[in-house]
Amino acid sequence: MLLAVLQARAHVLDAAANLSAIEEAAERAAAAGASVLLTPELFVLGYAPRTLRRELDPAALPALHDRLARIAARHSIAIVYSLPDVQGSSWKITCTFVDEDGIERGSYVKVHLFGDEEKEVFSPGDRPATVIDYQGLKLGMVICFDVEFPEAVRAAALQGTQLLLVPTALGAGCESVSTTLVPARAMENQLYVAYANHVGVEDGFALGGGSVVVDPFGETVARGDHEGQLLFAQIEPLELEKARAGISYLTERRADLYPGWGL
Amino acid sequence: MLLAVLQARAHVLDAAANLSAIEEAAERAAAAGASVLLTPELFVLGYAPRTLRRELDPAALPALHDRLARIAARHSIAIVYSLPDVQGSSWKITCTFVDEDGIERGSYVKVHLFGDEEKEVFSPGDRPATVIDYQGLKLGMVICFDVEFPEAVRAAALQGTQLLLVPTALGAGCESVSTTLVPARAMENQLYVAYANHVGVEDGFALGGGSVVVDPFGETVARGDHEGQLLFAQIEPLELEKARAGISYLTERRADLYPGWGL
Repeated sequence: MLLAVLQARAHVLDAAANLSAIEEAAERAAAAGASVLLTPELFVLGYAPRTLRRELDPAALPALHDRLARIAARHSIAIVYSLPDVQGSSWKITCTFVDEDGIERGSYVKVHLFGDEEKEVFSPGDRPATVIDYQGLKLGMVICFDVEFPEAVRAAALQGTQLLLVPTALGAGCESVSTTLVPARAMENQLYVAYANHVGVEDGFALGGGSVVVDPFGETVARGDHEGQLLFAQIEPLELEKARAGISYLTERRADLYPGWGL
Repeated sequence: MLLAVLQARAHVLDAAANLSAIEEAAERAAAAGASVLLTPELFVLGYAPRTLRRELDPAALPALHDRLARIAARHSIAIVYSLPDVQGSSWKITCTFVDEDGIERGSYVKVHLFGDEEKEVFSPGDRPATVIDYQGLKLGMVICFDVEFPEAVRAAALQGTQLLLVPTALGAGCESVSTTLVPARAMENQLYVAYANHVGVEDGFALGGGSVVVDPFGETVARGDHEGQLLFAQIEPLELEKARAGISYLTERRADLYPGWGL
């Protein structure tokens, strides 16, 4: 399966511009033969928690979901996109998987909120990775800071995830997340991890690019630089099997012990 | 605190040669001002599970512990060394912390056994990292394959470990453990990790060197090449504080959720 990863700057509260960027990426990705397009955290409205909370009318959200479903269907490519979810006074950071027919196949709520601004604006989720079956693969979703916690990715792996799709908004200067932690998550769980970041300044916040796709051996097979771009990576089910055929970390876990260790 | 890490080839079943290598390293390390010397997994007798099981007389073990305590006291340096522990028919892989007065301060039994040979010869431990107070720092110990499991290092961190001491026997060709997983363990728990490997061939098994000391930001501050050597790294309590002063991963964990996620 060919995966496409969009790394770009979003325009805060300019959904039309961001949807255009997603549509253009979807068109190019589909033309290249990709089955799935992964986009960054909150990309549809920009990464700007307080500004979104202050200025976004939640009544606009259903139409945005609809627009994204139409983009997916128009280009016949699945898309992972990220929007706030608003229920009354509760705002959450979510991502949604919409398939190549424009059908929503699953969504996920971010569990580990990052820093004061996100915690002020959003409520955290409490469920592990959302995992869906798609084209013979199990695709998991978590968001940004979640992937920095081995617990979140282990839970995804234990649910069978073979490719973990991670929309993110990683600040410039935090590159070691994508160069150290993301490769470790792939290697220690023997699965693919794709990590799609913004690049550029949004609402005064500098986002660092450096999006990656890492294979089940921990090797980075695609990496973004510090410009906007569309990355591609082939997801190979055989590599998943090969990685686990030697030592299988999931099998070698001492799952009987860990609860007693206070984990 | 200055830490010394011995990377060397052990001579299988030639305790006298291996003790000489440890004594020479202890002398050099102490002269350089080091407080602790970390040595590789099963270094005192060589990394050769089946050969040890077949040819080692367990009655020889108490005298080896005694010799190591004397080396520590003679050079006034704490030593982490690794030996089999034998109780009746149960053999285990252990490491021991002996202080600069030659007093044993703690020992640890390897929990995650690696591969068929270790599992045939040894029984696994079931307790998390051993953590001791030493010169104002909390020092944890796990062994080799343990460190590849985020659960094992998380448990050490939750017990307060500031410097995790890891004797290992990492095969040549497995370098990504020391270049990817060990740095991630340090970064995701915001502690120091020191990882001491053999180098060269022991009992037909090629061991890869590449010992490392990684700081609480995930930066590798000392790295061995593929020759025998003594590495040094300064352990800075202030770096531990700085790493956790921004985002503290241990505080940001959603510890309330993970047990319900089947971890």
